[in-house]
Amino acid sequence: MKQAWEIVQRKILLDRKPWMRVLAEDVRLPDGRNIPDYLHRELPDFVVILAQLSWGEIGLIRSYKHGLREVDIQPPAGYLEPGEGPLACAQRELREETGLTSPRWLSPGEFSLSGNRGGCTVHILLAKSCQIASAPVSDDLEEQEVPWLPIEQIREMWLRGSFKQLGSIAALGLALTHLEEELRPV
Amino acid sequence: MKQAWEIVQRKILLDRKPWMRVLAEDVRLPDGRNIPDYLHRELPDFVVILAQLSWGEIGLIRSYKHGLREVDIQPPAGYLEPGEGPLACAQRELREETGLTSPRWLSPGEFSLSGNRGGCTVHILLAKSCQIASAPVSDDLEEQEVPWLPIEQIREMWLRGSFKQLGSIAALGLALTHLEEELRPV
Repeated sequence: MKQAWEIVQRKILLDRKPWMRVLAEDVRLPDGRNIPDYLHRELPDFVVILAQLSWGEIGLIRSYKHGLREVDIQPPAGYLEPGEGPLACAQRELREETGLTSPRWLSPGEFSLSGNRGGCTVHILLAKSCQIASAPVSDDLEEQEVPWLPIEQIREMWLRGSFKQLGSIAALGLALTHLEEELRPV
Repeated sequence: MKQAWEIVQRKILLDRKPWMRVLAEDVRLPDGRNIPDYLHRELPDFVVILAQLSWGEIGLIRSYKHGLREVDIQPPAGYLEPGEGPLACAQRELREETGLTSPRWLSPGEFSLSGNRGGCTVHILLAKSCQIASAPVSDDLEEQEVPWLPIEQIREMWLRGSFKQLGSIAALGLALTHLEEELRPV
């Protein structure tokens, strides 16, 4: 059960770095079976950020998302640049998309996009006590609105299906719980 | 802001249906800019299932995941077959992977894998009052163990980083909350 599959051979099917590579791997299972052409993806890692203002509200982004073919609301997020760590990326993206800086960052976790096909690592970060440092200067392709909402409203939207992306559900669920745990009287 | 991008032209870069198609789209933004070769993915939809036994424990799957290159623990999950709806898929996958049937299914939500590149829809389902109907008969490639754990332990594992896949974090966070809400005294 804990034995890894052996990769006998791998072939690049598509190379569109830095955005996407697709590989076909011929693998041998622990029971001896050979599986040809098991697909594997390589995608850029990204961060998703729960950012709380010092007076309590959470910053979200509303924009058209071309992958969805529709408008969605989500936490600030963005791809790591080459050589950039997740914290530096999150600080840069938060500043660009919302104009905020935070003196206190936490890392609720990092996760893989897909267990079967691989993909990328998704880093979930929590930025507390944020202060407005500048106007947003995002160079993203999408026009963006930045609504500020109370934590209770975001928790309710999370539970009732207002967010459309899997990464938003994972990040908000986890980071809101970390935030609420800290706020809980001991 | 709410205006969709116009797709001027699309080209198939890779066709490995039913597992993956990759397209390049030339798009025109609302501000008139043209962006060539914006990548778009098509992947099979899948379900992730929180299954609770009638006596309270939750069923998980522990197996080697080749996309991660390591062993992971996760809720039961699987791809929709052609023409299959999410509920039928979840019932089939749960029966195959764990031997369970449920008289009471709920749908906490469905989400897109990626806002930028598209992908697939991830359906999160909650199966309550499950009964053991048969031995597991999974035809998945991985050897699997099926541990049964109390809900409080899974909630703690979820919060502390024991699950490695984004879909597990999204599904467990949402479905556990739905379950706990029902259990809460009114």
